[in-house]
Amino acid sequence: MLTKTPHLFDDATRVTAGDSCWQGRTSEDYWAFVGPFGGATAATILRALLDHPQRAGDPLALTVNYCAPIAEGDFDLDVRLVKANRSSQHWCVELTQAGADVATLATAVFAERRPSWSHQQAEFPGAKPFEQILPYPKVAAPWVKQYDFRFVDGSPEFGGATRDAPASAFSKLWIGDRVPRNIDFLSLMSMSDAFFGRIFHARRELVPFGTVSLTTYFHADAQDLAAEATTRVLAVADAKIFHKSYGDQNGELWSPNGRLLATTTQIAYFKA
Amino acid sequence: MLTKTPHLFDDATRVTAGDSCWQGRTSEDYWAFVGPFGGATAATILRALLDHPQRAGDPLALTVNYCAPIAEGDFDLDVRLVKANRSSQHWCVELTQAGADVATLATAVFAERRPSWSHQQAEFPGAKPFEQILPYPKVAAPWVKQYDFRFVDGSPEFGGATRDAPASAFSKLWIGDRVPRNIDFLSLMSMSDAFFGRIFHARRELVPFGTVSLTTYFHADAQDLAAEATTRVLAVADAKIFHKSYGDQNGELWSPNGRLLATTTQIAYFKA
Repeated sequence: MLTKTPHLFDDATRVTAGDSCWQGRTSEDYWAFVGPFGGATAATILRALLDHPQRAGDPLALTVNYCAPIAEGDFDLDVRLVKANRSSQHWCVELTQAGADVATLATAVFAERRPSWSHQQAEFPGAKPFEQILPYPKVAAPWVKQYDFRFVDGSPEFGGATRDAPASAFSKLWIGDRVPRNIDFLSLMSMSDAFFGRIFHARRELVPFGTVSLTTYFHADAQDLAAEATTRVLAVADAKIFHKSYGDQNGELWSPNGRLLATTTQIAYFKA
Repeated sequence: MLTKTPHLFDDATRVTAGDSCWQGRTSEDYWAFVGPFGGATAATILRALLDHPQRAGDPLALTVNYCAPIAEGDFDLDVRLVKANRSSQHWCVELTQAGADVATLATAVFAERRPSWSHQQAEFPGAKPFEQILPYPKVAAPWVKQYDFRFVDGSPEFGGATRDAPASAFSKLWIGDRVPRNIDFLSLMSMSDAFFGRIFHARRELVPFGTVSLTTYFHADAQDLAAEATTRVLAVADAKIFHKSYGDQNGELWSPNGRLLATTTQIAYFKA
C-alpha cells in the first residue's frame, strides 16, 4: 500500500460518469501558471475513457489539442465512441466549460493487444539510480511540486547567463510522483507532458510557453504495466527545431527495468 | 512550369467545397493494397482545410486516425472549426462514406506564424545527391509508383533471408513525386506516410500492416516552403519498438538545403 487515502493525482483527475457527458474539475494541486497543467487535463480525459462502460482494450494513442485556456472550476467532457472495430476503438472527447467553446479537443485509440513478434529497437538510456540523485528543488508552479524530478542530464539552468550559442534541449531525468504512486496509463499520460519546455533549456530562460498539441503512444498494455510495478520512469526529451514561434518536443518514458512504456511528441508555442 | 495538366496527386486529393460537408473521391493512382494510400487520405483532408473559406494561417499539426477501411469511391468530409483564437485555429474532420460510420477522424491546428528566435537543433542527415542514386524499382501497389524513392540507407530487403536478429528499422531516402511537383503542405503530409512499414525493414519481409494513427508537425510556413522551391525531400524514418501487434515510426522531412520541413510519428498495426 503506497497511500491509504486517494492520491492527489487521482483526486486531480477524477471524473464523474455521465451518459455521453462526463464531469471533471480543475485541481489547485496541479495548477500551472495560467491554467491547469496540461498533463493533468490529458490524464483526466484518459480517465473518462478508461472508466467508460463501452471501453474495450487498452490505450494505444492519445492526441490532445489545447484550444483555449481552461478556467479554474468544473468542466464537461463530451465523450464519443466514433468507431469500434473487432479489436480497436476510436474516441473523440471535447472539453467545455459552462457551455462555451471547446477548450480541449482529444482523439484516442484503444486496442486489445495480441501477442506478436516483439522487438525493442530503441536503446535504454540508462542512468544512475533514482536514489543517488538529488530531487529538483520545488519551484513556483503547484504542479511541479507534485512530481519528483531527478535530473541525470540537461538539468535546467533557467536565469543563467545568456550565451550566444543555444544550449542543448536534451534532458534525461527520473520522474516519479512526489507521493509515490504506481505507474499506470494515467500517470504515463500526465508525465508525457511533465517535461519542462524545451525552449527553456535551449534559451536557458523561462519565456511564455504553451503546449498546443500533444500525442502519446503507449507501448505497454495493462498486463505489462502491472509486471513492471514501478513508481517512476526514466525519461528523455529533446527538440529538433524552434521556428516562427513554435517548437517541437519528443520524449520517451522507460521503466527502470529498461522497457519502453510510452513515446510522446508535442508542438508548443513560445514567445522569444 | 512542371506540368501543364493537373498533377496526378492534385487529382487524387481533389475536394469539392460544401458548407460544412465537403466531398472527395478515392484515387486509383494512389491505391494501396486494401484501400487508398493513407498519405493521400491525409492530404485530401488537409486540402479541404486549406481550401476552406474560414481557414486562417498555415498548418501546424495534423493528426489522422484511420478508423476503418475506405472503399473505392466517393466520401464525405465533415469539416468543423472547433475553436478559433487570435492566431490559431483548431479543426476536426470526419470522413464517412454513404452515411456509414466514421472511417477516418482527424484533428488539425492552423497558426499564423510570427517571427521569433529560431534554432534548428536537429542535424541535417545529409546524403549523396538525388541524381546519383537509382530510383527504387516500381512495385505492385499503385501509390508507390507515384513516388520516386531513392534510398541512401536502409534500402528495403523484403523477401530476403530471414535471420535470427532483427534488422535495423532505419531508412534514409530521397522522396519526390514520380512526376515532379513542388513540395507544399499537401505533399509533406502525404510523404510523411510514404515510408514503408518499419516492420517490413525490421523483419525483412512484408507482413499485414496498417497505420492506425499518424501525426505530422509542420516546421515551415508557406513563405518558407516557397523559398525552398524544391520537388523533393530528404527523409529519415526509424522505429523504437514493435510489441503486441503495434509498432511506432518517427520521421523527418528535410529540404535539400538542410531545412527541417516536417516531423512525423505514427503507430501502426502489424501481424507477425
